[in-house]
Amino acid sequence: MSKTPVWKSIALSLTSDIAEGRYNTGDQLPTEAQLAAQHGVNRHTVRRALSDMAEQGLVHPRRGAGVFVAARPTDYPIGKRVRYHKSISASGKIPGKKILSLTTRVADDSEAEALQLTPGDTVHVYDGLSLADGQPIGLFQSVFPAERLPDILDALSDTQSVTRALQRCGVEDYTRVSTRLTARAATPTQALHLHLTEGAPVLFSVGVNADTTGIPVEYGRTVFAGERVTLTMNED
Amino acid sequence: MSKTPVWKSIALSLTSDIAEGRYNTGDQLPTEAQLAAQHGVNRHTVRRALSDMAEQGLVHPRRGAGVFVAARPTDYPIGKRVRYHKSISASGKIPGKKILSLTTRVADDSEAEALQLTPGDTVHVYDGLSLADGQPIGLFQSVFPAERLPDILDALSDTQSVTRALQRCGVEDYTRVSTRLTARAATPTQALHLHLTEGAPVLFSVGVNADTTGIPVEYGRTVFAGERVTLTMNED
Repeated sequence: MSKTPVWKSIALSLTSDIAEGRYNTGDQLPTEAQLAAQHGVNRHTVRRALSDMAEQGLVHPRRGAGVFVAARPTDYPIGKRVRYHKSISASGKIPGKKILSLTTRVADDSEAEALQLTPGDTVHVYDGLSLADGQPIGLFQSVFPAERLPDILDALSDTQSVTRALQRCGVEDYTRVSTRLTARAATPTQALHLHLTEGAPVLFSVGVNADTTGIPVEYGRTVFAGERVTLTMNED
Repeated sequence: MSKTPVWKSIALSLTSDIAEGRYNTGDQLPTEAQLAAQHGVNRHTVRRALSDMAEQGLVHPRRGAGVFVAARPTDYPIGKRVRYHKSISASGKIPGKKILSLTTRVADDSEAEALQLTPGDTVHVYDGLSLADGQPIGLFQSVFPAERLPDILDALSDTQSVTRALQRCGVEDYTRVSTRLTARAATPTQALHLHLTEGAPVLFSVGVNADTTGIPVEYGRTVFAGERVTLTMNED
Protein backbone atom coordinates (compact mmCIF):
# COMPACT_ATOMS: atom_id res chain seq x y z
CA MET A 1 0.00 0.00 0.00
CA SER A 2 1.67 3.25 -1.12
CA LYS A 3 1.08 6.02 1.43
CA THR A 4 -0.60 9.14 0.06
CA PRO A 5 1.13 12.43 0.96
CA VAL A 6 -0.96 14.68 3.23
CA TRP A 7 -1.44 17.36 0.54
CA LYS A 8 -2.87 14.67 -1.79
CA SER A 9 -5.27 13.38 0.86
CA ILE A 10 -6.57 16.93 1.35
CA ALA A 11 -6.97 17.36 -2.43
CA LEU A 12 -8.86 14.04 -2.63
CA SER A 13 -11.25 14.91 0.17
CA LEU A 14 -11.96 18.39 -1.26
CA THR A 15 -12.52 16.77 -4.68
CA SER A 16 -15.08 14.39 -3.28
CA ASP A 17 -16.77 17.27 -1.40
CA ILE A 18 -17.20 18.94 -4.80
CA ALA A 19 -18.29 15.66 -6.42
CA GLU A 20 -20.91 15.18 -3.71
CA GLY A 21 -22.27 18.70 -4.19
CA ARG A 22 -21.12 20.13 -0.84
CA TYR A 23 -19.49 22.89 -2.93
CA ASN A 24 -21.12 23.96 -6.19
CA THR A 25 -19.79 25.67 -9.29
CA GLY A 26 -18.59 29.16 -8.44
CA ASP A 27 -18.59 28.54 -4.69
CA GLN A 28 -15.58 29.83 -2.82
CA LEU A 29 -13.65 27.17 -0.90
CA PRO A 30 -12.62 27.87 2.70
CA THR A 31 -9.47 30.01 2.97
CA GLU A 32 -6.02 28.40 3.14
CA ALA A 33 -5.94 29.30 6.82
CA GLN A 34 -9.32 27.65 7.46
CA LEU A 35 -8.39 24.50 5.52
CA ALA A 36 -5.02 24.34 7.28
CA ALA A 37 -6.79 24.53 10.66
CA GLN A 38 -9.45 21.96 9.62
CA HIS A 39 -6.83 19.43 8.54
CA GLY A 40 -4.23 20.31 11.16
CA VAL A 41 -1.53 21.09 8.61
CA ASN A 42 0.40 24.20 7.60
CA ARG A 43 -0.74 26.50 4.79
CA HIS A 44 2.03 25.29 2.49
CA THR A 45 0.47 21.82 2.48
CA VAL A 46 -2.98 23.27 1.73
CA ARG A 47 -1.50 25.37 -1.07
CA ARG A 48 -0.01 22.22 -2.61
CA ALA A 49 -3.41 20.50 -2.53
CA LEU A 50 -5.21 23.48 -4.09
CA SER A 51 -2.63 23.92 -6.87
CA ASP A 52 -2.96 20.21 -7.68
CA MET A 53 -6.74 20.63 -7.97
CA ALA A 54 -6.30 23.78 -10.06
CA GLU A 55 -4.03 21.77 -12.40
CA GLN A 56 -6.87 19.28 -12.82
CA GLY A 57 -9.27 22.12 -13.64
CA LEU A 58 -11.42 21.44 -10.56
CA VAL A 59 -10.89 24.84 -8.96
CA HIS A 60 -9.51 28.17 -10.06
CA PRO A 61 -7.77 30.66 -7.77
CA ARG A 62 -8.58 34.36 -8.10
CA ARG A 63 -5.71 36.47 -6.87
CA GLY A 64 -6.67 38.19 -3.64
CA ALA A 65 -10.21 36.76 -3.72
CA GLY A 66 -9.69 33.07 -2.92
CA VAL A 67 -10.17 29.70 -4.60
CA PHE A 68 -13.42 28.90 -6.42
CA VAL A 69 -15.03 25.70 -7.69
CA ALA A 70 -14.67 25.43 -11.48
CA ALA A 71 -17.46 24.42 -13.86
CA ARG A 72 -19.14 21.10 -13.09
CA PRO A 73 -18.46 18.05 -15.26
CA THR A 74 -20.27 17.63 -18.58
CA ASP A 75 -23.44 15.61 -18.08
CA TYR A 76 -23.65 12.79 -20.59
CA PRO A 77 -26.80 10.65 -20.64
CA ILE A 78 -26.49 6.92 -21.22
CA GLY A 79 -29.40 4.76 -22.26
CA LYS A 80 -31.25 3.20 -25.11
CA ARG A 81 -31.30 6.11 -27.55
CA VAL A 82 -28.24 8.27 -26.90
CA ARG A 83 -26.90 10.46 -29.70
CA TYR A 84 -23.60 12.18 -28.92
CA HIS A 85 -24.17 15.45 -30.76
CA LYS A 86 -27.65 15.98 -29.31
CA SER A 87 -26.58 15.02 -25.77
CA ILE A 88 -23.62 17.39 -25.56
CA SER A 89 -25.66 20.22 -27.10
CA ALA A 90 -28.36 19.56 -24.49
CA SER A 91 -25.76 19.98 -21.74
CA GLY A 92 -25.10 23.47 -23.12
CA LYS A 93 -21.73 22.68 -24.65
CA ILE A 94 -20.49 22.56 -28.23
CA PRO A 95 -20.01 18.93 -29.32
CA GLY A 96 -17.05 17.92 -31.43
CA LYS A 97 -15.30 14.80 -32.69
CA LYS A 98 -11.73 14.29 -33.78
CA ILE A 99 -10.76 11.29 -35.91
CA LEU A 100 -7.53 9.71 -34.68
CA SER A 101 -7.51 6.77 -37.07
CA LEU A 102 -9.68 4.71 -39.42
CA THR A 103 -8.38 1.17 -39.84
CA THR A 104 -9.43 -2.32 -40.92
CA ARG A 105 -8.25 -5.44 -39.10
CA VAL A 106 -9.30 -8.85 -37.78
CA ALA A 107 -11.79 -8.76 -34.87
CA ASP A 108 -10.50 -9.71 -31.43
CA ASP A 109 -12.47 -12.19 -29.30
CA SER A 110 -14.63 -9.66 -27.45
CA GLU A 111 -15.39 -7.78 -30.70
CA ALA A 112 -16.34 -10.97 -32.55
CA GLU A 113 -18.60 -12.06 -29.71
CA ALA A 114 -20.31 -8.66 -29.35
CA LEU A 115 -20.85 -8.27 -33.11
CA GLN A 116 -21.84 -11.93 -33.61
CA LEU A 117 -18.96 -12.51 -36.01
CA THR A 118 -16.96 -15.66 -36.58
CA PRO A 119 -13.27 -15.64 -35.56
CA GLY A 120 -11.16 -14.25 -38.37
CA ASP A 121 -13.84 -11.86 -39.65
CA THR A 122 -12.62 -8.34 -40.31
CA VAL A 123 -13.87 -5.15 -38.69
CA HIS A 124 -13.60 -1.47 -39.55
CA VAL A 125 -12.32 0.56 -36.60
CA TYR A 126 -12.84 4.25 -35.84
CA ASP A 127 -10.56 5.65 -33.13
CA GLY A 128 -11.39 9.16 -32.06
CA LEU A 129 -11.81 11.84 -29.45
CA SER A 130 -15.10 13.26 -28.21
CA LEU A 131 -14.93 16.97 -27.41
CA ALA A 132 -17.15 19.32 -25.43
CA ASP A 133 -16.40 23.01 -25.96
CA GLY A 134 -13.16 21.86 -27.56
CA GLN A 135 -12.05 19.99 -24.43
CA PRO A 136 -11.47 16.22 -24.78
CA ILE A 137 -13.98 14.31 -22.65
CA GLY A 138 -13.80 10.83 -24.20
CA LEU A 139 -11.36 8.63 -26.09
CA PHE A 140 -13.34 6.06 -28.05
CA GLN A 141 -12.94 3.11 -30.37
CA SER A 142 -15.96 2.18 -32.49
CA VAL A 143 -15.78 -1.23 -34.16
CA PHE A 144 -18.04 -2.11 -37.12
CA PRO A 145 -18.58 -5.43 -38.93
CA ALA A 146 -16.75 -4.96 -42.27
CA GLU A 147 -18.90 -7.38 -44.26
CA ARG A 148 -22.17 -5.81 -43.08
CA LEU A 149 -20.92 -2.22 -43.44
CA PRO A 150 -18.27 -2.19 -46.19
CA ASP A 151 -18.37 1.57 -46.79
CA ILE A 152 -18.57 2.77 -43.17
CA LEU A 153 -15.03 4.23 -43.04
CA ASP A 154 -15.64 6.51 -46.04
CA ALA A 155 -18.95 7.57 -44.52
CA LEU A 156 -17.27 8.27 -41.17
CA SER A 157 -14.46 10.35 -42.66
CA ASP A 158 -17.07 12.37 -44.58
CA THR A 159 -19.54 12.87 -41.74
CA GLN A 160 -17.48 12.24 -38.55
CA SER A 161 -20.84 11.14 -37.15
CA VAL A 162 -21.59 7.49 -36.37
CA THR A 163 -25.32 8.14 -36.70
CA ARG A 164 -25.06 9.74 -40.14
CA ALA A 165 -22.42 7.26 -41.32
CA LEU A 166 -24.65 4.33 -40.35
CA GLN A 167 -27.60 5.96 -42.11
CA ARG A 168 -25.55 6.36 -45.26
CA CYS A 169 -24.75 2.63 -45.02
CA GLY A 170 -28.44 1.75 -44.80
CA VAL A 171 -28.82 1.57 -41.02
CA GLU A 172 -31.71 4.01 -40.58
CA ASP A 173 -31.87 3.68 -36.82
CA TYR A 174 -30.01 1.94 -33.98
CA THR A 175 -30.33 1.59 -30.22
CA ARG A 176 -28.04 0.67 -27.35
CA VAL A 177 -28.40 -2.99 -26.38
CA SER A 178 -26.05 -3.11 -23.39
CA THR A 179 -23.51 -1.00 -21.55
CA ARG A 180 -20.80 -2.00 -19.08
CA LEU A 181 -19.09 0.60 -16.90
CA THR A 182 -16.11 0.49 -14.62
CA ALA A 183 -13.55 2.89 -13.15
CA ARG A 184 -9.93 2.62 -14.23
CA ALA A 185 -6.66 4.47 -13.88
CA ALA A 186 -5.74 6.31 -17.09
CA THR A 187 -3.03 4.60 -19.11
CA PRO A 188 -0.27 6.89 -20.45
CA THR A 189 -1.92 6.93 -23.92
CA GLN A 190 -5.34 7.72 -22.49
CA ALA A 191 -3.89 10.44 -20.26
CA LEU A 192 -2.12 11.99 -23.24
CA HIS A 193 -5.27 12.21 -25.37
CA LEU A 194 -7.59 13.28 -22.54
CA HIS A 195 -5.12 15.78 -21.01
CA LEU A 196 -5.11 13.93 -17.71
CA THR A 197 -2.40 13.00 -15.27
CA GLU A 198 -1.33 9.40 -15.89
CA GLY A 199 -3.20 7.16 -13.45
CA ALA A 200 -6.05 9.68 -13.06
CA PRO A 201 -9.50 8.06 -12.69
CA VAL A 202 -11.40 7.38 -15.92
CA LEU A 203 -14.83 5.90 -16.61
CA PHE A 204 -14.44 2.95 -18.97
CA SER A 205 -17.58 2.14 -20.96
CA VAL A 206 -18.18 -0.81 -23.29
CA GLY A 207 -21.39 -0.90 -25.30
CA VAL A 208 -23.15 -2.59 -28.18
CA ASN A 209 -25.53 -0.88 -30.62
CA ALA A 210 -27.96 -2.84 -32.77
CA ASP A 211 -30.23 -1.95 -35.68
CA THR A 212 -34.01 -2.13 -35.45
CA THR A 213 -33.92 -5.86 -36.25
CA GLY A 214 -31.54 -6.48 -33.34
CA ILE A 215 -28.46 -7.14 -35.47
CA PRO A 216 -25.36 -5.58 -33.83
CA VAL A 217 -23.89 -2.76 -35.92
CA GLU A 218 -21.35 -1.20 -33.56
CA TYR A 219 -19.19 -2.28 -30.64
CA GLY A 220 -17.86 0.73 -28.80
CA ARG A 221 -15.30 1.26 -26.08
CA THR A 222 -15.01 4.72 -24.54
CA VAL A 223 -12.71 6.08 -21.86
CA PHE A 224 -14.29 9.17 -20.28
CA ALA A 225 -12.21 11.73 -18.37
CA GLY A 226 -13.47 10.99 -14.86
CA GLU A 227 -13.19 14.50 -13.48
CA ARG A 228 -14.90 16.06 -16.50
CA VAL A 229 -17.81 13.76 -17.32
CA THR A 230 -20.83 12.61 -15.33
CA LEU A 231 -22.85 9.82 -16.91
CA THR A 232 -26.54 10.30 -16.17
CA MET A 233 -29.49 7.93 -16.32
CA ASN A 234 -33.10 8.98 -15.91
CA GLU A 235 -35.62 6.18 -15.64
CA ASP A 236 -39.10 6.91 -16.90
CA MET B 1 1.91 16.45 -14.68
CA SER B 2 3.49 13.79 -12.43
CA LYS B 3 5.41 11.29 -14.55
CA THR B 4 4.30 7.68 -14.11
CA PRO B 5 7.14 5.21 -13.45
CA VAL B 6 7.63 2.67 -16.25
CA TRP B 7 6.52 -0.29 -14.10
CA LYS B 8 3.25 1.56 -13.35
CA SER B 9 2.63 2.29 -17.03
CA ILE B 10 3.05 -1.42 -17.81
CA ALA B 11 0.67 -2.34 -14.98
CA LEU B 12 -1.90 0.18 -16.28
CA SER B 13 -1.76 -1.11 -19.86
CA LEU B 14 -2.04 -4.77 -18.73
CA THR B 15 -4.97 -3.77 -16.49
CA SER B 16 -6.82 -2.16 -19.38
CA ASP B 17 -6.08 -5.23 -21.57
CA ILE B 18 -7.87 -7.29 -18.90
CA ALA B 19 -10.66 -4.71 -18.60
CA GLU B 20 -11.17 -4.81 -22.36
CA GLY B 21 -11.36 -8.59 -22.40
CA ARG B 22 -8.09 -9.23 -24.26
CA TYR B 23 -7.24 -11.53 -21.33
CA ASN B 24 -10.03 -13.39 -19.56
CA THR B 25 -10.33 -14.92 -16.10
CA GLY B 26 -7.82 -17.74 -15.70
CA ASP B 27 -5.82 -16.78 -18.77
CA GLN B 28 -2.08 -16.86 -18.37
CA LEU B 29 -0.35 -13.54 -19.06
CA PRO B 30 2.76 -13.51 -21.26
CA THR B 31 5.93 -14.49 -19.38
CA GLU B 32 8.09 -11.89 -17.68
CA ALA B 33 10.60 -12.32 -20.49
CA GLN B 34 7.95 -11.77 -23.17
CA LEU B 35 6.51 -8.71 -21.39
CA ALA B 36 10.01 -7.31 -20.86
CA ALA B 37 10.72 -7.70 -24.58
CA GLN B 38 7.32 -6.21 -25.58
CA HIS B 39 7.84 -3.11 -23.46
CA GLY B 40 11.61 -2.86 -23.94
CA VAL B 41 12.36 -3.01 -20.22
CA ASN B 42 14.18 -5.43 -17.92
CA ARG B 43 12.41 -8.26 -16.10
CA HIS B 44 12.74 -6.49 -12.76
CA THR B 45 10.47 -3.69 -14.05
CA VAL B 46 7.92 -6.23 -15.31
CA ARG B 47 8.04 -8.04 -11.97
CA ARG B 48 7.27 -4.75 -10.19
CA ALA B 49 4.23 -4.19 -12.46
CA LEU B 50 2.91 -7.73 -11.93
CA SER B 51 3.35 -7.62 -8.15
CA ASP B 52 1.45 -4.32 -8.08
CA MET B 53 -1.40 -5.92 -10.03
CA ALA B 54 -1.32 -8.98 -7.76
CA GLU B 55 -1.63 -6.63 -4.76
CA GLN B 56 -4.78 -5.19 -6.35
CA GLY B 57 -6.16 -8.70 -6.82
CA LEU B 58 -6.16 -8.42 -10.62
CA VAL B 59 -3.76 -11.30 -11.22
CA HIS B 60 -2.34 -14.14 -9.17
CA PRO B 61 1.09 -15.68 -9.71
CA ARG B 62 1.45 -19.47 -9.49
CA ARG B 63 4.97 -20.42 -8.56
CA GLY B 64 6.68 -22.02 -11.55
CA ALA B 65 3.55 -21.79 -13.70
CA GLY B 66 3.28 -18.07 -14.45
CA VAL B 67 0.87 -15.20 -13.77
CA PHE B 68 -2.87 -15.67 -14.30
CA VAL B 69 -5.82 -13.28 -14.57
CA ALA B 70 -7.87 -13.30 -11.35
CA ALA B 71 -11.65 -13.45 -11.21
CA ARG B 72 -13.45 -10.77 -13.21
CA PRO B 73 -15.14 -7.88 -11.38
CA THR B 74 -18.57 -8.39 -9.83
CA ASP B 75 -21.27 -7.40 -12.31
CA TYR B 76 -23.77 -5.07 -10.72
CA PRO B 77 -26.82 -4.05 -12.76
CA ILE B 78 -28.09 -0.48 -12.51
CA GLY B 79 -31.55 0.54 -13.61
CA LYS B 80 -35.08 1.13 -12.56
CA ARG B 81 -35.66 -1.88 -10.31
CA VAL B 82 -32.32 -2.90 -8.82
CA ARG B 83 -32.26 -4.85 -5.55
CA TYR B 84 -28.81 -5.36 -4.06
CA HIS B 85 -29.31 -8.82 -2.58
CA LYS B 86 -30.88 -10.24 -5.74
CA SER B 87 -28.29 -8.64 -8.04
CA ILE B 88 -25.23 -9.93 -6.23
CA SER B 89 -26.76 -13.40 -5.91
CA ALA B 90 -27.45 -13.35 -9.65
CA SER B 91 -23.77 -12.68 -10.28
CA GLY B 92 -22.99 -15.90 -8.42
CA LYS B 93 -21.63 -14.24 -5.28
CA ILE B 94 -22.84 -14.12 -1.70
CA PRO B 95 -24.25 -10.66 -0.93
CA GLY B 96 -23.58 -9.01 2.40
CA LYS B 97 -24.00 -5.66 4.11
CA LYS B 98 -22.14 -4.16 7.03
CA ILE B 99 -23.58 -1.25 8.99
CA LEU B 100 -20.93 1.38 9.72
CA SER B 101 -23.24 3.91 11.35
CA LEU B 102 -26.88 4.93 11.74
CA THR B 103 -27.29 8.63 12.48
CA THR B 104 -29.78 11.48 12.36
CA ARG B 105 -28.80 14.98 11.27
CA VAL B 106 -29.88 18.02 9.24
CA ALA B 107 -30.01 17.46 5.46
CA ASP B 108 -27.31 19.13 3.36
CA ASP B 109 -28.32 21.08 0.22
CA SER B 110 -28.06 18.22 -2.26
CA GLU B 111 -29.94 15.86 0.08
CA ALA B 112 -32.73 18.38 0.69
CA GLU B 113 -33.09 19.01 -3.04
CA ALA B 114 -33.11 15.31 -3.99
CA LEU B 115 -35.59 14.37 -1.25
CA GLN B 116 -37.76 17.47 -1.81
CA LEU B 117 -37.21 18.66 1.78
CA THR B 118 -37.01 22.20 3.07
CA PRO B 119 -33.67 23.43 4.42
CA GLY B 120 -33.28 22.47 8.08
CA ASP B 121 -35.31 19.25 7.75
CA THR B 122 -33.70 16.24 9.39
CA VAL B 123 -32.67 13.00 7.68
CA HIS B 124 -31.83 9.51 8.91
CA VAL B 125 -28.50 8.32 7.51
CA TYR B 126 -27.30 4.75 6.98
CA ASP B 127 -23.57 4.44 6.29
CA GLY B 128 -22.47 0.96 5.31
CA LEU B 129 -20.41 -1.42 3.25
CA SER B 130 -21.70 -3.67 0.47
CA LEU B 131 -19.95 -7.02 0.32
CA ALA B 132 -19.70 -9.73 -2.34
CA ASP B 133 -18.30 -13.04 -1.10
CA GLY B 134 -17.18 -11.11 1.98
CA GLN B 135 -15.11 -8.68 -0.07
CA PRO B 136 -16.06 -4.98 0.15
CA ILE B 137 -17.29 -3.72 -3.23
CA GLY B 138 -19.12 -0.55 -2.26
CA LEU B 139 -19.10 2.10 0.48
CA PHE B 140 -22.53 3.71 0.62
CA GLN B 141 -24.52 6.37 2.42
CA SER B 142 -28.32 6.09 2.24
CA VAL B 143 -30.22 9.19 3.32
CA PHE B 144 -33.91 9.01 4.28
CA PRO B 145 -36.42 11.78 5.07
CA ALA B 146 -36.87 11.56 8.87
CA GLU B 147 -40.40 12.96 8.96
CA ARG B 148 -41.66 10.59 6.25
CA LEU B 149 -39.82 7.55 7.66
CA PRO B 150 -39.45 8.07 11.43
CA ASP B 151 -38.68 4.42 12.24
CA ILE B 152 -36.34 3.61 9.34
CA LEU B 153 -33.17 3.34 11.45
CA ASP B 154 -34.66 0.68 13.75
CA ALA B 155 -35.92 -1.20 10.70
CA LEU B 156 -32.47 -0.97 9.07
CA SER B 157 -30.60 -2.22 12.13
CA ASP B 158 -33.05 -5.15 12.35
CA THR B 159 -33.08 -6.09 8.67
CA GLN B 160 -29.85 -4.53 7.27
CA SER B 161 -31.87 -4.37 4.05
CA VAL B 162 -33.12 -1.08 2.60
CA THR B 163 -35.90 -2.90 0.74
CA ARG B 164 -37.22 -4.69 3.82
CA ALA B 165 -36.73 -1.65 6.06
CA LEU B 166 -38.73 0.52 3.66
CA GLN B 167 -41.46 -2.12 3.51
CA ARG B 168 -41.65 -2.18 7.29
CA CYS B 169 -42.08 1.60 7.17
CA GLY B 170 -44.97 1.31 4.73
CA VAL B 171 -43.10 1.76 1.44
CA GLU B 172 -44.25 -1.40 -0.34
CA ASP B 173 -42.27 -0.72 -3.51
CA TYR B 174 -39.76 1.77 -4.86
CA THR B 175 -37.90 2.41 -8.10
CA ARG B 176 -34.79 4.30 -9.16
CA VAL B 177 -35.63 7.75 -10.52
CA SER B 178 -32.17 8.91 -11.55
CA THR B 179 -28.53 7.89 -11.32
CA ARG B 180 -25.37 9.95 -11.81
CA LEU B 181 -22.01 8.24 -12.30
CA THR B 182 -18.47 9.50 -12.37
CA ALA B 183 -14.95 8.19 -11.79
CA ARG B 184 -12.96 9.45 -8.82
CA ALA B 185 -9.73 8.76 -6.99
CA ALA B 186 -10.34 6.96 -3.68
CA THR B 187 -10.04 9.20 -0.64
CA PRO B 188 -8.05 7.77 2.29
CA THR B 189 -11.29 6.84 4.11
CA GLN B 190 -12.77 5.19 1.03
CA ALA B 191 -9.53 3.30 0.37
CA LEU B 192 -9.47 2.07 3.96
CA HIS B 193 -13.03 0.67 3.84
CA LEU B 194 -12.75 -0.76 0.32
CA HIS B 195 -9.24 -2.21 0.81
CA LEU B 196 -7.86 -0.10 -2.04
CA THR B 197 -4.69 1.87 -2.48
CA GLU B 198 -5.38 5.55 -1.73
CA GLY B 199 -6.04 7.34 -5.02
CA ALA B 200 -7.17 4.12 -6.74
CA PRO B 201 -10.03 4.61 -9.24
CA VAL B 202 -13.56 4.31 -7.84
CA LEU B 203 -17.00 4.58 -9.46
CA PHE B 204 -19.00 7.24 -7.64
CA SER B 205 -22.78 6.83 -7.97
CA VAL B 206 -25.50 9.18 -6.76
CA GLY B 207 -29.12 8.07 -7.05
CA VAL B 208 -32.65 8.81 -5.95
CA ASN B 209 -35.31 6.20 -5.22
CA ALA B 210 -39.01 7.07 -5.12
CA ASP B 211 -42.14 5.22 -4.03
CA THR B 212 -44.89 4.22 -6.47
CA THR B 213 -46.45 7.70 -6.17
CA GLY B 214 -43.15 9.35 -7.17
CA ILE B 215 -42.30 10.68 -3.70
CA PRO B 216 -38.53 10.36 -3.03
CA VAL B 217 -37.80 7.93 -0.20
CA GLU B 218 -34.01 7.49 -0.44
CA TYR B 219 -31.03 9.49 -1.61
CA GLY B 220 -28.01 7.26 -1.99
CA ARG B 221 -24.33 7.85 -2.62
CA THR B 222 -22.14 4.82 -3.31
CA VAL B 223 -18.43 4.53 -3.98
CA PHE B 224 -17.72 1.28 -5.85
CA ALA B 225 -14.26 -0.29 -5.89
CA GLY B 226 -13.37 0.39 -9.53
CA GLU B 227 -11.26 -2.70 -10.10
CA ARG B 228 -13.82 -5.03 -8.52
CA VAL B 229 -17.19 -3.84 -9.82
CA THR B 230 -18.62 -3.48 -13.31
CA LEU B 231 -21.94 -1.64 -13.52
CA THR B 232 -24.11 -3.16 -16.23
CA MET B 233 -27.15 -1.86 -18.09
CA ASN B 234 -29.27 -3.93 -20.43
CA GLU B 235 -31.87 -2.05 -22.42
CA ASP B 236 -35.03 -3.88 -23.34
